[in-house]
Amino acid sequence: MTAETPPAALGDAPNRGVLLRFAEHLPITDATPMISLGEGDTPLVKSTHIVRDIGCDALYFKLESCNPTGSFKDRGMVVAVAKAMEAGATAIMCASTGNTSASAAAYAARYGLGVYVVVPDGKIARGKLAQSAVYGAEIIAIEGNFDAALRVAREITAKHPIALVNSVNPFRIEGQKTAAFEIADALGDAPDVLALPVGNAGNITAYWKGFIEYHHRERTSKRPRMLGFQAAGAAPLVHGAPVEHPHTLASAIRIGNPASWKTAIAARDESGGSIDAVTDDEILAAYNRLGREEGIFCEPASAAGVAGLLKLVAGGASFAGKTIVCIITGNGLKDPETALKTEPPIHHVAAELGAIEREMGWS
Amino acid sequence: MTAETPPAALGDAPNRGVLLRFAEHLPITDATPMISLGEGDTPLVKSTHIVRDIGCDALYFKLESCNPTGSFKDRGMVVAVAKAMEAGATAIMCASTGNTSASAAAYAARYGLGVYVVVPDGKIARGKLAQSAVYGAEIIAIEGNFDAALRVAREITAKHPIALVNSVNPFRIEGQKTAAFEIADALGDAPDVLALPVGNAGNITAYWKGFIEYHHRERTSKRPRMLGFQAAGAAPLVHGAPVEHPHTLASAIRIGNPASWKTAIAARDESGGSIDAVTDDEILAAYNRLGREEGIFCEPASAAGVAGLLKLVAGGASFAGKTIVCIITGNGLKDPETALKTEPPIHHVAAELGAIEREMGWS
Repeated sequence: MTAETPPAALGDAPNRGVLLRFAEHLPITDATPMISLGEGDTPLVKSTHIVRDIGCDALYFKLESCNPTGSFKDRGMVVAVAKAMEAGATAIMCASTGNTSASAAAYAARYGLGVYVVVPDGKIARGKLAQSAVYGAEIIAIEGNFDAALRVAREITAKHPIALVNSVNPFRIEGQKTAAFEIADALGDAPDVLALPVGNAGNITAYWKGFIEYHHRERTSKRPRMLGFQAAGAAPLVHGAPVEHPHTLASAIRIGNPASWKTAIAARDESGGSIDAVTDDEILAAYNRLGREEGIFCEPASAAGVAGLLKLVAGGASFAGKTIVCIITGNGLKDPETALKTEPPIHHVAAELGAIEREMGWS
Repeated sequence: MTAETPPAALGDAPNRGVLLRFAEHLPITDATPMISLGEGDTPLVKSTHIVRDIGCDALYFKLESCNPTGSFKDRGMVVAVAKAMEAGATAIMCASTGNTSASAAAYAARYGLGVYVVVPDGKIARGKLAQSAVYGAEIIAIEGNFDAALRVAREITAKHPIALVNSVNPFRIEGQKTAAFEIADALGDAPDVLALPVGNAGNITAYWKGFIEYHHRERTSKRPRMLGFQAAGAAPLVHGAPVEHPHTLASAIRIGNPASWKTAIAARDESGGSIDAVTDDEILAAYNRLGREEGIFCEPASAAGVAGLLKLVAGGASFAGKTIVCIITGNGLKDPETALKTEPPIHHVAAELGAIEREMGWS
């Protein structure tokens, strides 16, 4: 017991925080405010059912959905916002399909910054819109897709005194790489394979950077093969050319011209991995299996990793003997409409034992 | 449905898990399957703004919203489901305002159990309904409120071979008490005050049990005052009599006849605390302040603790020098409709620098 330690000395999240926990790996100075909203240190959970169909030794899910705003974005945002505050910024801006804006708005609210989020009009999942509204962001809904939103966000922040906190901001990648450290720490080594959805391609870039750094420091014996998966209607990295009108129900990866294109390709090639496409049907099937078989409710984009692994296995790939980690990037509650697209079977009945027994066939 | 072989004792969540982490404090036997969905070890986050109005030394929020299904229910559910599996159960049932059913359904999905959730028809927040649907629960929507749902769930499980996993199941309380341990571990001692919403009263019972046990083991120097808050339209513990038609927008605490009535009163009296009522307006004001000032998006019921503290301060109470922890019981994404009840101000504009500058008044 350390009751003599005054709580004031405990920092903004006494049992958490990407900045404090991974300070030695991050671009922190004496002037960096050690802010936190309790991000990072998310659960790593073993597959109970889907592992059998993948045929690997062990399959894990990294539940980035358990971050404070419900997605992996918080890890990078805390670094980007801290560095923006260090530089004297009083307002931040991002383009977003929804997760980035929710995260930016939460940290801005907490630390008294102005926040402007540029989103594709009418293309944001309802839960994510609710988040930005509650956190008090100024929402700029543009006629156009994510790529157009990022373009104007770059133009505005180049001209006005507002810090851009998209993943083109290198501090975002620095924070996001810490998830790789956590996975290696929990497993005792890097996994053989990392599978994840790819949209703007900042996350695959960040994981690969993290695994390389940990390997250099001899914290792991190996580096994983990086298997990225894009939605078939938004798969520029698979086709090798930007997609002008990206389309997929997985709104978080509905991106036609990824900002981190080159680094994603480098992660793929240096790791001996691949970036493949999965259809919306394959994504939805994996999304439903994650819920019904693993008890994991993720946003549709998050199911791309599982969908992709199942597709590779169906195509003849073998993962025998391998340890695989799939990244669950965001919480299913961010997109309740997809979950309720098929109205669930509900038994409407009187609050009476006999009535329920008859309805359920138990009498 | 058949229960499946319990998973290997290796651990279903390598960096997490209430059962493994707190085994010595829980009713675990050699036959208890050490299941996990990555529950527990949630962030404790310091207030940046509201602390000033409370006038205490430090104010923290325990983000139980970061649990795998988005509420504190996962802590108790993992113990209840493990003990049900140990006893050979192949199906579980609960009455629920939504959070308990989501949690029960997730663990049941993961471990191959049948799951029946009894809910008040039309009274479940949309996100919570989505969760039960995705996890594949059988949803029994009864004509009546939560109290009627719990009554029939008790009757059904008394007669049929289905395990009841409501908080009348003592294993639920055992699991939930572990949040008290985590708070004491993070702060180095128990806080002076614990503030939380009270509905069915299982949680205030569990926290008090946890703080008493840790104090007995000399892990803390003190025990907190327990300050519970009910919604004004559903405040049986404040009035001293059941409420036949409980009403509040905070659906998670819309309960008229709490199952853990006596233990909640004991927690109040033994701790020198209080159980008070807050209006829906006070709850909504606190809910909005948590979002806009702290970057915390919680479900409405979760704001009752902050609403109550602000009410007590307005009434003349002083918390000078105190360390206070408020429990954020559930994620705001579970109830996006409340968040979007006031349509957020959105700037609809062309994807063009000049147009945005004119719209925002920056030109």
